[in-house]
Amino acid sequence: MNFPKIKVRESRLERDLIDLGKFGEVGGGGIMRLALSPADLTARAWVKDRMREAGLEVREDGAANIIGRLKSKSDSDHAPCIAFGSHSDAVPNGGKFDGALGICAGLEAVRAIRESEVALPFPLELMILTDEEGSHYAGTFGSRAMLDLLAEGEICKSKGDKQPSLAESLKRMGKDPEKIGEAIRSPSAFRAFLEIHIEQGPVLDSAGIPIGIVQGIVAIERYTIRVQGQAGHAGTTPMRLRDDALVKASRIIMEIHEALRNMEAEVVGTIGRVQVYPGAFNIIPGAVDLFLDLRAMEDSVLAFARKRIQEIVARQSKAKMDPFLAKAGVSLDPGIMKAIEISCRERGILFHYLGSGAGHDAMTFQTRGIPTGMIFIPCKEGKSHCPEEAIRIGDAVMGTQILADSIVRIAFGQEGP
Amino acid sequence: MNFPKIKVRESRLERDLIDLGKFGEVGGGGIMRLALSPADLTARAWVKDRMREAGLEVREDGAANIIGRLKSKSDSDHAPCIAFGSHSDAVPNGGKFDGALGICAGLEAVRAIRESEVALPFPLELMILTDEEGSHYAGTFGSRAMLDLLAEGEICKSKGDKQPSLAESLKRMGKDPEKIGEAIRSPSAFRAFLEIHIEQGPVLDSAGIPIGIVQGIVAIERYTIRVQGQAGHAGTTPMRLRDDALVKASRIIMEIHEALRNMEAEVVGTIGRVQVYPGAFNIIPGAVDLFLDLRAMEDSVLAFARKRIQEIVARQSKAKMDPFLAKAGVSLDPGIMKAIEISCRERGILFHYLGSGAGHDAMTFQTRGIPTGMIFIPCKEGKSHCPEEAIRIGDAVMGTQILADSIVRIAFGQEGP
Repeated sequence: MNFPKIKVRESRLERDLIDLGKFGEVGGGGIMRLALSPADLTARAWVKDRMREAGLEVREDGAANIIGRLKSKSDSDHAPCIAFGSHSDAVPNGGKFDGALGICAGLEAVRAIRESEVALPFPLELMILTDEEGSHYAGTFGSRAMLDLLAEGEICKSKGDKQPSLAESLKRMGKDPEKIGEAIRSPSAFRAFLEIHIEQGPVLDSAGIPIGIVQGIVAIERYTIRVQGQAGHAGTTPMRLRDDALVKASRIIMEIHEALRNMEAEVVGTIGRVQVYPGAFNIIPGAVDLFLDLRAMEDSVLAFARKRIQEIVARQSKAKMDPFLAKAGVSLDPGIMKAIEISCRERGILFHYLGSGAGHDAMTFQTRGIPTGMIFIPCKEGKSHCPEEAIRIGDAVMGTQILADSIVRIAFGQEGP
Repeated sequence: MNFPKIKVRESRLERDLIDLGKFGEVGGGGIMRLALSPADLTARAWVKDRMREAGLEVREDGAANIIGRLKSKSDSDHAPCIAFGSHSDAVPNGGKFDGALGICAGLEAVRAIRESEVALPFPLELMILTDEEGSHYAGTFGSRAMLDLLAEGEICKSKGDKQPSLAESLKRMGKDPEKIGEAIRSPSAFRAFLEIHIEQGPVLDSAGIPIGIVQGIVAIERYTIRVQGQAGHAGTTPMRLRDDALVKASRIIMEIHEALRNMEAEVVGTIGRVQVYPGAFNIIPGAVDLFLDLRAMEDSVLAFARKRIQEIVARQSKAKMDPFLAKAGVSLDPGIMKAIEISCRERGILFHYLGSGAGHDAMTFQTRGIPTGMIFIPCKEGKSHCPEEAIRIGDAVMGTQILADSIVRIAFGQEGP
């Protein structure tokens, strides 16, 4: 157990977070930094400068991913690397830490590892992956371009008339979209991928735990629940003769919430949209559509929850449930989780295993069979994708320390060099 | 007790209902007969012919109300009349009996009374009142024009760009809208007003009772109920840490329904519109607006229901209730109700006292102090304002008989001539 003395510095991390948070800052503390927008391009230039200062070799691939490489003792072009990173872009009027934390923590981890003078057996790569938020079209564009997971013609699509396609944005940067294939790398080029990110949910913050070890990204199923009743005049139909679709739908909403709330296993279900027909003040609702989003890490948990919900819906007359989306979950690598857990234990830092309810670039790497891990730190009240997004610097320092320690553990095996 | 032998004829009534139902008939059995539209104008011409055949003197007033008068023995221009009638117009794709029943029943009552050769001490007036449904602007236009209850400038307003104002429709008929005041009559011109109408609700039909005696038109109150919660990511926020506004709103919907359903008194409450914010699949509802319509005949019942609902809303965190409409109810005349009740008892016909949840021209007459009554007959499953609107001819005959009997009872006092 000769673990090197790696010490991340709060002052450098904090300064970087503050500096990066200025690119695209708008009134109210939010960030307007859509991928490859002028604000994002200035942020990216700043990142490249910081990478070079930290001793990294910097290049940009055909998909505009920024890659800063730290050679290993015995480096060759084809040696598999331990990669880590996140994204510089933000959702419209988003927060200062989603993505940015992973960049600043990555920079500081590189500095701390270099200062420790440990001789790593693998090269390191700090990656800034393009358009994770999907402002052009679909999200996690950069990681999917790198790992050959783009859909046919995807780079020519855009979300709306006013938004450019990725092909247009790449051209404006002086890149040839036809050559996007040059960004593709073999999964064998990676020993591992790590991403540190704010949780974007309230679990860690409410429990006062600084480190989350992510077990995977949840599976998502979506359903339409159609509840039929009998429309009628709101003034002339007595209560006892009504078949009010909204009353039945309300019972379904409450019972689904209660059922999921009382499950021991980690599962969430949300009804975020409701459509009432005909939707007039003076007409008893004749039909209601509920839109259900159901997520769980474990397939068995998802199946159990689905069955309970189907029973709840079936108990109401003239109600039925139809699926319209099913997205498989991704389990992250147990070996990487273990490396993160040992790093926490060695530092005496509290940790908690949890699932990620949101998608991340890390998912792309794991999907391609690259051992992948994610470290979460708390964000205040779980708020994210909004100007109120906030972290405690102490949590960020601990997360960065665990990132650096984990990189070294992965490089040498779990016990260190 | 020398009550005259008045006998309404099913065959004549049925033929009139069938004939009138052809004006504006559309596929599926519905009616397109907006007030003063070409279809309505042909229906009105048919009504005038039937009135003349029945021995009435026919005129049209400045508001296009059609008035057919049957002189009394000792008639003078200023003798107060016993008026009755309804409307020839329909809502878009409405049914064949809303309004039409009152016209055909009125025609048949006049015929039966004339055939009985009873010498009435008051003249009778059968009235076809213009635009009860408010296709131009507000409803019950004709009765309000007659009783000087129009709002300033109302006849120049319309519901939308494609709909004419009443001024335009009156002009197209060759009437001068400036002279609409000529339609005004003093309440003292009326001894009473009677209207027979389909119930437009399921009370009589479900109970198998052919005659409803209307106690009044309900008071209406409308409220917005705003429920605040905490928006959050549908994937990253565990069930136990949620404050889902829709779940709280669902509890309110169910509890209001249960509370009103269990009240002994006649009161109805409907939530017909729901607005969820932000209304996205993957975001926990942060706020919900419910729109509540509350109706009761009795002020004390309305107040009691309001208080119970306020308590239900107050039990949920961050929920509040704001009024935005309060329309007083109208109680119909107890003397007229008694005349209808005695008419039913004498004929051995089942009756049931009930409130009207919808507005009618009768309301206008009672508002002006004219003793007013309404007779309801069942409509199938309570359906109205739709092509499925249907009645049993036997109920229509009984209703028409009670209308004719009641007119005579009102003319002579409750015991008849």
